Amino acid sequence: MKADIVWIHAYVLPMTGKYGDLTADGAVAVKGEYIVKTGPTDEVMREVQAEEVVDASGMLLMPGLIDAHIHTSCAIARGTAQDMDHWMQKGLWPWMQHMTLEDARAGSELNIIEGVKAGTTTFGDYNADMDQLLSRYASIGVRVAAAEMVNEIPKNIGDLPVEDMYPFDSSIGEKKLQANIKLYEKWHGAEDGRISVMFGPQGPDMLSLDLLRQTKREAERFNTKIHMHVCQGDREIFQLEKRYGKRSIPFLEEENFLNERLVAVHLTEATQQETKKTAESGAAMINCSGSIGIIDGIVPPLEMFTQCGGRAALGSDQVPGNNSSNMFNEMKFAAILNKVKAKDPKVFPAIKALRMATIDAAAVLGLDQKIGSLEAGKKADMLVIDTRKPALTPVLMHPVENIIANLVYAARGEEVRDVLVDGKYIMKNRELLNVREENTVQEVQQRAEKLAERIRT
Amino acid sequence: MKADIVWIHAYVLPMTGKYGDLTADGAVAVKGEYIVKTGPTDEVMREVQAEEVVDASGMLLMPGLIDAHIHTSCAIARGTAQDMDHWMQKGLWPWMQHMTLEDARAGSELNIIEGVKAGTTTFGDYNADMDQLLSRYASIGVRVAAAEMVNEIPKNIGDLPVEDMYPFDSSIGEKKLQANIKLYEKWHGAEDGRISVMFGPQGPDMLSLDLLRQTKREAERFNTKIHMHVCQGDREIFQLEKRYGKRSIPFLEEENFLNERLVAVHLTEATQQETKKTAESGAAMINCSGSIGIIDGIVPPLEMFTQCGGRAALGSDQVPGNNSSNMFNEMKFAAILNKVKAKDPKVFPAIKALRMATIDAAAVLGLDQKIGSLEAGKKADMLVIDTRKPALTPVLMHPVENIIANLVYAARGEEVRDVLVDGKYIMKNRELLNVREENTVQEVQQRAEKLAERIRT
Repeated sequence: MKADIVWIHAYVLPMTGKYGDLTADGAVAVKGEYIVKTGPTDEVMREVQAEEVVDASGMLLMPGLIDAHIHTSCAIARGTAQDMDHWMQKGLWPWMQHMTLEDARAGSELNIIEGVKAGTTTFGDYNADMDQLLSRYASIGVRVAAAEMVNEIPKNIGDLPVEDMYPFDSSIGEKKLQANIKLYEKWHGAEDGRISVMFGPQGPDMLSLDLLRQTKREAERFNTKIHMHVCQGDREIFQLEKRYGKRSIPFLEEENFLNERLVAVHLTEATQQETKKTAESGAAMINCSGSIGIIDGIVPPLEMFTQCGGRAALGSDQVPGNNSSNMFNEMKFAAILNKVKAKDPKVFPAIKALRMATIDAAAVLGLDQKIGSLEAGKKADMLVIDTRKPALTPVLMHPVENIIANLVYAARGEEVRDVLVDGKYIMKNRELLNVREENTVQEVQQRAEKLAERIRT
Repeated sequence: MKADIVWIHAYVLPMTGKYGDLTADGAVAVKGEYIVKTGPTDEVMREVQAEEVVDASGMLLMPGLIDAHIHTSCAIARGTAQDMDHWMQKGLWPWMQHMTLEDARAGSELNIIEGVKAGTTTFGDYNADMDQLLSRYASIGVRVAAAEMVNEIPKNIGDLPVEDMYPFDSSIGEKKLQANIKLYEKWHGAEDGRISVMFGPQGPDMLSLDLLRQTKREAERFNTKIHMHVCQGDREIFQLEKRYGKRSIPFLEEENFLNERLVAVHLTEATQQETKKTAESGAAMINCSGSIGIIDGIVPPLEMFTQCGGRAALGSDQVPGNNSSNMFNEMKFAAILNKVKAKDPKVFPAIKALRMATIDAAAVLGLDQKIGSLEAGKKADMLVIDTRKPALTPVLMHPVENIIANLVYAARGEEVRDVLVDGKYIMKNRELLNVREENTVQEVQQRAEKLAERIRT
């Protein structure tokens, strides 16, 4: 079998099987966008004729990480809203209100760079005006599962008292739904399939019932997932109870949202019974440990959701609150926060967190036929991680394998040396190949200063 | 006034005052080991004639971080004991039992390198055979507040059933106390004062009453802090109740340990009342969020301790369980774990965590006259942090200062460009000047493989 390139003598963690199937002297062969063979080095070398053979001794090859829920456009306001209550209204809103489309685009670029440098190859990006952002995704070369944020709330909603009902404006709603449809038609499947598009109703409280139903029909028509905040805060529950006389999960059940199409983000306020019902319905959950911990002081019911058989992924959410987009961070947080919630160190082992940032996340986003593991036939979204960095030293295979524990509990992101998406390097020796990091950093700094000026005046 | 070197046009975060006293265009002047002047650039440049002027635009200058409690020798077993109960007995012990002095020394070196690369300049190191480790501290050039681990427990204690009383052996105890005394006499004040020595009774359960009293007398004689694990687990409480009929805090109160000399590590099992009593006594607390979260699934009563007026510091503890020694990690964990414990995002703001890794930590270790802040007259233990890294972008001064939030919630450690201790560079452009990282990594890998072999046979 022919290949363009084969990495040999590496630790290979394909994330197949229940425990990841680590091999100590492994190889991965890639042809074009695809992985054509993985396995022990000698076996792969017997079967594969490669143009280029890379000795990857001391390196770990694993699937690219998936940040399943992220609002990259907010990154321009990193670190502006912490240690407060009413984060959305008091913290984020002043920044969002004054942000231009170009601010959003620059912030998004910064957030993508940050993520890639920490091994993220797929972003579950969820923003308004997503069309603006996707061109940079295309040129940077990463994978994105995008959703347009559909709501029908006027722009000055941040000023609304928390206890007031959202005033829906159907002209806004219709425009946003059309934007999501256009986004799908323009981008879905673009860039060799690196870009996919879902429907993104912002939350059951943020749309009228009409628009919510319409958005659902469109998701069914195009056969996409529905990426939606669900039970994301007490304000949502309050709005739902006031408008429909029921909480989010019973409401969504009645409206036939609870099934495999739904990707429910946060579930912060879900009761045990609601969590169980959602998990058992086949809907998936995305958990943003760092974000919800910092902005709400809450550990969502992720452990329970998975105990009930639900499939879950991790996301970094946004950086005005989190404040970083680094899946190593999210993995460690998910594990430790669920351990302390359960008061049990055995709960949420490292492999569980790692699956939620790779193969399980791919399944949540409906991409597991393509990515999430290193397997022949899948796209070559792969990390080359230097295990000889202090935080990953030593590497042991016996009497315990310690790589997975150290990836989850010790790695910082800087251990990622190279990043490939679709078989192409997008970062090599920690340098991004398709975007100039220092230019983006400089642009964001300048734009943020101007944005801050607009807020002050 | 004369200086060897002055950094100008930097963000300077001296960690004086309640909120850190950030300056946007600041300068720090250093002569020999000491800071001679800090302030706005123009003011410092008017008063100081420096041999070398460094334009530090875009850099942040702040005090070196303090890892107040760390067992560096364990680093050779990184990542070998997670997601389990009885971590000490089932996880750590098999490794400790077979570890040689040279293994400990190599592991310690690795842990120091890891820490320095993430901005740690002072290590509150706590090990047996500390004399072995201090020579490497001396040559690497970092600061260490060392304690010899004094107990009187035979080496095969790990095999003892959890519910059995520790069999004390006074010949072991006497030897270890003598080692602590010798350590003090040999090393205290060495290397221009970079090395200091405390007394380190391992825990109220790990020594006989005689030896505990004797160790206290020695600490008083040499006027050092007593660095001790207190209420570190249910096993300690069990041993204390069985031996003395009381829990750790009432026992230590009776024995006159509760005062400013005591540095109580963990307090994992302390009740509210015990926490209050300890805080009010003037004793200090060291909290190891990552370690205790992962190995016990517990958030110790740090927030309560400080609410009662107690002074506290953070530590990374050890890497077979944590699994990293990175104070950025510990700061973020301390904040988020205490927020979720209190179910309140306002609890434990970023500045509180940053103080516990700088000025408050210095006070806990009795070193605040020397280090912990950037002030004229203090030793120049200083970090040069590149704010133009993605995780620290943008930097804003108005309408909110976001640097402290981003240091605590976003920085990973790799943003630290240069590290100075006693006015001397020990890391420059991320390269350690006094130790070869790749040699240490290689040695630890080889030693760990051999250690693993000894465990298997």
